[in-house]
Amino acid sequence: MSPAPGPGTSELVAGVFAGDSRRIGQAISAAESGDGVPDLLRRIFPRTGRARVVGLTGPPGAGKSTLALKLAQAYRSRGRTVGVVAVDPSSPFTGGAILGDRIRMSEIYTDPGVFIRSMATRGTMGGLARATSDAVDILDAAGFDVVLVETVGVGQDEVDIVKTAETVALVLVPGLGDDIQAIKAGILEIADVFVVNKSDREGADRTAAELAMMLDLTAAKPWRPPIVRTVAPRGEGVTAVVDAIESHGGWLNTSSEGGRREVRRARARLLALLEERFHRTIESRAPEPDGFEEAIRRVRERAEDPYSAAERLFERFVREPAGDRA
Amino acid sequence: MSPAPGPGTSELVAGVFAGDSRRIGQAISAAESGDGVPDLLRRIFPRTGRARVVGLTGPPGAGKSTLALKLAQAYRSRGRTVGVVAVDPSSPFTGGAILGDRIRMSEIYTDPGVFIRSMATRGTMGGLARATSDAVDILDAAGFDVVLVETVGVGQDEVDIVKTAETVALVLVPGLGDDIQAIKAGILEIADVFVVNKSDREGADRTAAELAMMLDLTAAKPWRPPIVRTVAPRGEGVTAVVDAIESHGGWLNTSSEGGRREVRRARARLLALLEERFHRTIESRAPEPDGFEEAIRRVRERAEDPYSAAERLFERFVREPAGDRA
Repeated sequence: MSPAPGPGTSELVAGVFAGDSRRIGQAISAAESGDGVPDLLRRIFPRTGRARVVGLTGPPGAGKSTLALKLAQAYRSRGRTVGVVAVDPSSPFTGGAILGDRIRMSEIYTDPGVFIRSMATRGTMGGLARATSDAVDILDAAGFDVVLVETVGVGQDEVDIVKTAETVALVLVPGLGDDIQAIKAGILEIADVFVVNKSDREGADRTAAELAMMLDLTAAKPWRPPIVRTVAPRGEGVTAVVDAIESHGGWLNTSSEGGRREVRRARARLLALLEERFHRTIESRAPEPDGFEEAIRRVRERAEDPYSAAERLFERFVREPAGDRA
Repeated sequence: MSPAPGPGTSELVAGVFAGDSRRIGQAISAAESGDGVPDLLRRIFPRTGRARVVGLTGPPGAGKSTLALKLAQAYRSRGRTVGVVAVDPSSPFTGGAILGDRIRMSEIYTDPGVFIRSMATRGTMGGLARATSDAVDILDAAGFDVVLVETVGVGQDEVDIVKTAETVALVLVPGLGDDIQAIKAGILEIADVFVVNKSDREGADRTAAELAMMLDLTAAKPWRPPIVRTVAPRGEGVTAVVDAIESHGGWLNTSSEGGRREVRRARARLLALLEERFHRTIESRAPEPDGFEEAIRRVRERAEDPYSAAERLFERFVREPAGDRA
């Protein structure tokens, strides 16, 4: 079923294992495009599972990218290598900030112990979560000690992605207006560490106090997320964030929650792969008689309602529970 | 396959057709939960296709919710009824703003010609796009002339949802910091109308000029998105936004783009339904021997890589192209 190893797959695998940043970049590009990637990922999988995967999320404008770079520096000063994967259209890594300026921190961009990569966040129907997990695996197999995954915490996909990290830091800011802070309870609940960034701004005390109050009001949980204040561009509080992240990692290792997160991650990984496969199957069989294209036409013309059309398509594609009758 | 009409379905259908706001709300709740919804949607589908569906998107803090209310008022003063569907965790309609204040505009909340509804944006794996389309159909069938769909324009799902509208207005703001404006080209491209909200702030001229420059630099298209400045709380520019939206609608009717969007919408609708069905199938068959649960366990233990496990699961579920061999 899967294609024979392309001419480049062996070189990519060897390059990833050797920590060759050009090959790592090419491997992630292959993951984004989906070409030949099953074989590549199958071959690197045995070397994964060693990196510490940390999610960084929060609204646009919270300063996540700058904080990610400062966290990378802090980990480097502890002798650990760091991969950064940005799944955030507003991230300067992702080519965002078209109306603004890009962050420049040349020292970190030239450090071979740091690899920064953005993921294309548009157009890959169903493939973003899958490609991001692949990128994390590639960086893991390449030997990076820590992999930071940056997502903007206001989209469903992006929240689902960051939830696959072992530890999630939620970055908030004071004073950017109440609207900006309007994060639904769902995302506050996934935070293992709260970061109040831009804490030199007015309102930092209030934001931190409100978070603490919220934690007091919710049912006590075995891990209480610490609240850390930072001013990322000046590096203030960054060490405390690393300490909080590592402390949470230590706790995971001694609690049953660590295992639960591994299950959650494996589940999300498989679902993302299955979804993408399903999309590809529908698209590839679209022109068949009574296929997807005809269904689209019928729904568009209101000759058939979408529920009936989808039901019919689904019955054609998916086996009954009895299965394997052929 | 689909369940017999539940005791409430006929009442819901009749209530929706009668424009009964309680029944409309119950019908949307049914769409969110997914219970009995295929039959409900099948029965209302023949009455859909008349509403004008307008998407409103942009980053958190752009003032989309206030603008949506002001647009609703402006349409009302032209004698048209309006449904609003908010798919935005930062929207006050959606119960966001937990650290801030809710917008109060009591006059509009009590107008029977306006129906405002937020969608739960977390936890419904794959179901958000489907449920949102259902809500739009319900409001359409209930006779609302205009349906506004508000999404936060920084998540993949949310962008995909707003793309199913006939006309998309992208709301930006000056002066909230460059990070906030860091919207990727992908979302700028889906805009049919640009709104520079909070235009009484410093930098409004610059933001509008940058957008105009961007439009000058991209290849000329048959529709050039107008750039409208607003101060939504004061109602300034709101009439001009409605005019721009309606002008785009008129253009759609006379160009081939109108048909293309109908196809895009029917396609997205069917895909969302198929995806959700697929998820349900995987979950319901999870405990089978060699099913999803076992695959999760094997991947978690690194006994099998996720690509091979997903391939195996997929082969079990999905028929070969020859199909229907049984």
